[in-house]
Amino acid sequence: MSTTGITAPAGFTAAALTAGIKPSGNPDMALVVNNGPEFNAAAVFTRNRVVASPVKVSRQAIGDGRIRAVIFNAGNANACNGAQGDLDAAETQQRVAGLLGLEPTDVGVCSTGLIGELLPMDKVRAGVDQLVPALGDHGADAAEAIMTTDLVKKETVVKGKGWTLGGMGKGVGMMSPSLATMLVCLTTDASATPEMLDTALRAASKVTFDTLDIDGSTSTNDTVFLLASGASGVTPSQEELNAAVLEASEDIARQMQADAEGVTKRVTVTVEGTTNEEQALDAARTLARDNLFKCAMFGSDPNWGRVLAAVGMADADMDPDHISVYFNGQPVCVDTTGAPGARQVDLSGADIDVLVNLGVDGPGRATVRTTDLSHDYVHINSAYSS
Amino acid sequence: MSTTGITAPAGFTAAALTAGIKPSGNPDMALVVNNGPEFNAAAVFTRNRVVASPVKVSRQAIGDGRIRAVIFNAGNANACNGAQGDLDAAETQQRVAGLLGLEPTDVGVCSTGLIGELLPMDKVRAGVDQLVPALGDHGADAAEAIMTTDLVKKETVVKGKGWTLGGMGKGVGMMSPSLATMLVCLTTDASATPEMLDTALRAASKVTFDTLDIDGSTSTNDTVFLLASGASGVTPSQEELNAAVLEASEDIARQMQADAEGVTKRVTVTVEGTTNEEQALDAARTLARDNLFKCAMFGSDPNWGRVLAAVGMADADMDPDHISVYFNGQPVCVDTTGAPGARQVDLSGADIDVLVNLGVDGPGRATVRTTDLSHDYVHINSAYSS
Repeated sequence: MSTTGITAPAGFTAAALTAGIKPSGNPDMALVVNNGPEFNAAAVFTRNRVVASPVKVSRQAIGDGRIRAVIFNAGNANACNGAQGDLDAAETQQRVAGLLGLEPTDVGVCSTGLIGELLPMDKVRAGVDQLVPALGDHGADAAEAIMTTDLVKKETVVKGKGWTLGGMGKGVGMMSPSLATMLVCLTTDASATPEMLDTALRAASKVTFDTLDIDGSTSTNDTVFLLASGASGVTPSQEELNAAVLEASEDIARQMQADAEGVTKRVTVTVEGTTNEEQALDAARTLARDNLFKCAMFGSDPNWGRVLAAVGMADADMDPDHISVYFNGQPVCVDTTGAPGARQVDLSGADIDVLVNLGVDGPGRATVRTTDLSHDYVHINSAYSS
Repeated sequence: MSTTGITAPAGFTAAALTAGIKPSGNPDMALVVNNGPEFNAAAVFTRNRVVASPVKVSRQAIGDGRIRAVIFNAGNANACNGAQGDLDAAETQQRVAGLLGLEPTDVGVCSTGLIGELLPMDKVRAGVDQLVPALGDHGADAAEAIMTTDLVKKETVVKGKGWTLGGMGKGVGMMSPSLATMLVCLTTDASATPEMLDTALRAASKVTFDTLDIDGSTSTNDTVFLLASGASGVTPSQEELNAAVLEASEDIARQMQADAEGVTKRVTVTVEGTTNEEQALDAARTLARDNLFKCAMFGSDPNWGRVLAAVGMADADMDPDHISVYFNGQPVCVDTTGAPGARQVDLSGADIDVLVNLGVDGPGRATVRTTDLSHDYVHINSAYSS
């Protein structure tokens, strides 16, 4: 078996090919199949209220806690295509199910790419028909086929005691000229109930995928699947499962952050000194989304005044006269006043840590990963979509 | 009298000079004085919880509904300077009051510029001392002295029936490399109570300054003053006053939008088809702040998929299957599905109108003015602050 990615755990096969959906002619369809003996699964989806047709189909499929296969395409999001888009997603699901001898609701569907263009169903049908007989140890190929503007494919493997967790992912938030979406598929040969999987996936997503905030944009198609085959015969504890899913999710999220469009800096924003985690997260997100702060990071500029101006707008308890800011561990603002040497802090490296203490005596603490706002981000995202 | 700006209405004098606060050597201090016979006033301030020292001083001064003079400096925001910053703002206020024979609480203070640097009080004191004897018909000079990265000065005059309203402004949101802040001063020779002025100013700000959203950032120093001398002897109705304050505010806000950093497109976002105005405003702001949408506008790209993805995250009632989008009056998305010819819409002009209908049968409607996200915005805002 492959030692990386979704086919690293026992019980999983995958296939990938070029169906002709991407104008580039690169691989653009992938299929992952859970061969059992168990078929439990969990999933999390975009919080956007405008959801793509494949998300509607997948949400229904995960309802019973079982998924036996997931079909992916890149190059077309099948979003905002009205009733025809829903029909096309359902037909894709049914075709995969028919060829594999499954119920349609055993099959998840993931799409990523341009919004508002109908899927070329002739190409999708032909792709599905060729994927099924090609199934095998092809996790790495699948990871490559789901890429859009990703520069590198993203895979992970985490080893448990006698069991394995693998994964692949693409994108980060809405990161590209309409080629949107974060898609992640995690696989494990551990034996776990749908409830255990759901608990582990939600806990991990909350502090990894949900706190990766490149541009504040949320795709219509974001989907994370976790599939368990039970093929190892090992039933980990909830804590062991949580730890492995968290480690794999962190690994994929870090790869996404490093590959985000136009990134020149990886910025970690931590907020503490407020009433609760929710407030800390709101403040961290507010800062991570502030364009002036992000431009300062691009310029390696220790401009802590922008940090203060941004967090001052957050929905978090704070003491406006006792806010502190640290860049790479060095205090630049103490009690809402500049610290000596603040403007000389060296931010020329690729990784920047920002810690903000809002001055309230509370346990609230949260971290968000983001990037700088660079010329390349504007260049990539202002290119014409058609 | 000058026919433009803050000295157009009877009863007002102004002065401006170079005190040496701006490194550029451009004019950087201004004073406007209401010579009466009435001294009623209103003001609105930043909603940021981190507020600059001059805002604290001005908030206290407006408490009794009377302001007789406002002192401005550009080049230094006097924000996040701790107790010394508060002392410096108070000393500036007291010095102006002393020279004019007023109470300190008759004087408003406005600062704009770098956050976190102490005011050079020797220069400020000398500047105040020279401004008072120089008072005269110098509204245009005052408008120029409050500029930071503004490329042009911003003034307005609105004529009532026997009375006049004038104004000046600078900046737009937090628009610049630490040279932050929107400052506006409106003057009128109408006779109006503090309550009338407050009503008119709040109503106008809500749909002009508050809905001008260039980068989602809100300065620590934003301040809008409205001063009334009563020198015309005319008491307009509340409706007449509202209309004039609205017209002047719209004029200044449009000038700010046109002069925003790095702007190549002026984008007007209107959202309708939701339950109430608050929800419509939330959706319009969400879209106006979405970097992917703003990059598409920079690229003249009619990428309506990004509009859907952005408004789908707004805190507004919507029918996700019945959202419509219009670019420059042309439908590009109807019932959440692409309209024929959508990708051929011409957005090459400098002004782009975006209308989004969220598909709910409600009276909610709101408009936000914004700009594109350009290479120049990143360039200007990534320059080193020190």
